[in-house]
Amino acid sequence: MKDKKGTLYLIPVPLGAEGYAALSQQILDVLPRLKHFIVERERTARRFVKQVLPDADIGALTFFELDKHHPEILPNSFVRPLLEGCDMGLLSEAGCPGIADPGAVVVRKVHELGGAVKPLSGPSAIVLALMASGLNGQQFVFHGYLPVKKGERIRKLRELERVISQTGRTQIFIETPYRNAQLFEALLQHLPRDLSLCVAMDLSLPTEFVATKKVALWRSQPLSFEDKRPAVFLIGR
Amino acid sequence: MKDKKGTLYLIPVPLGAEGYAALSQQILDVLPRLKHFIVERERTARRFVKQVLPDADIGALTFFELDKHHPEILPNSFVRPLLEGCDMGLLSEAGCPGIADPGAVVVRKVHELGGAVKPLSGPSAIVLALMASGLNGQQFVFHGYLPVKKGERIRKLRELERVISQTGRTQIFIETPYRNAQLFEALLQHLPRDLSLCVAMDLSLPTEFVATKKVALWRSQPLSFEDKRPAVFLIGR
Repeated sequence: MKDKKGTLYLIPVPLGAEGYAALSQQILDVLPRLKHFIVERERTARRFVKQVLPDADIGALTFFELDKHHPEILPNSFVRPLLEGCDMGLLSEAGCPGIADPGAVVVRKVHELGGAVKPLSGPSAIVLALMASGLNGQQFVFHGYLPVKKGERIRKLRELERVISQTGRTQIFIETPYRNAQLFEALLQHLPRDLSLCVAMDLSLPTEFVATKKVALWRSQPLSFEDKRPAVFLIGR
Repeated sequence: MKDKKGTLYLIPVPLGAEGYAALSQQILDVLPRLKHFIVERERTARRFVKQVLPDADIGALTFFELDKHHPEILPNSFVRPLLEGCDMGLLSEAGCPGIADPGAVVVRKVHELGGAVKPLSGPSAIVLALMASGLNGQQFVFHGYLPVKKGERIRKLRELERVISQTGRTQIFIETPYRNAQLFEALLQHLPRDLSLCVAMDLSLPTEFVATKKVALWRSQPLSFEDKRPAVFLIGR
């Protein structure tokens, strides 16, 4: 084991095939130097490296794929290159690793080992949605997914509505794309008419869509979710 | 007034003079096309444009500065270029406009006018801190500033601690740099010893510092805040 450990670079990836302009110069600078990656899915990660570095010898790179069902079980072999002094990259499926994905497990491990971590700037659907919503960006909550079961979901929406009244914090959540229409329906049905609802889809992509309207107005101008596009939902005042 | 309104581009700016590599290609592509900007502070905005576009004729650009004390009062003249069909840029002092700053007022106005808004990717201290902390990025809350008065601050910290126990959500907050040492002191004094505390400073800059430790460990390894560097604080499990 060498004295000097490597650095784990946290590398955002595009939010879609046509979202490469959202990457930062930092990413383009660091990527060519890395040979070892910890990734959410190897196929996506290979495609990403190939796209950014068309001339790279992808076969010479190592990709450690997190266990889909138990990402918290991190084999020691995954961080061995770091301990041997090699820098590594952490990549998620879309956007910033460690946010709305299992990447934090890897970062925590590196902190425990006393290694260095370097987060790079890039696309984050949550941040892009919040910026574009026009809703309160001074205080906000990200919930991940809301409950799927009807009763629980309604209770959760009542709770969010109460928190907005009390604190003014914008409430942000996501849904699996094939359930977007169902969630949107539930929002229109159960939220009060004077609350603002923002729907942001395909962020940073050519098909990007962002709209913020009162619930009452959405009810008369509903939205089609036919294409199963990734969406972020925000509610607030 | 033209039929076709302009687009308001939401343009992140670097988190410090040496943070330009955190900008995205999108920003470099859009900036040369814009002649009108709504900004938090004109001096910072001019410096930013000059840095990204050294050959630009800055004198030919218009900067509308938000009222420092009443940013919610947005003169109609600020959005007139948009209504006349010109694209505009929204710039904050650091990071992403509309997040932890007054920019949302402008975005909301543009939504009301039926104009288009386009958020661009770039550095966000909150996101970089959360990625690098290794704390829960699946659910989190951003609070802005905690109360400054001692009694209120202690009550707030008790509340955050309770929310972490109940929900596991990472709690994120910032402080005016000259008060960082005081806040850090309060965190070590009033948070339980087994909670994780991350301090992230100078994100995306050469002097970047990120460390996550249990409160008990921080107590025996305190941190110096002499340089008044911008910091993000995160607590969680």
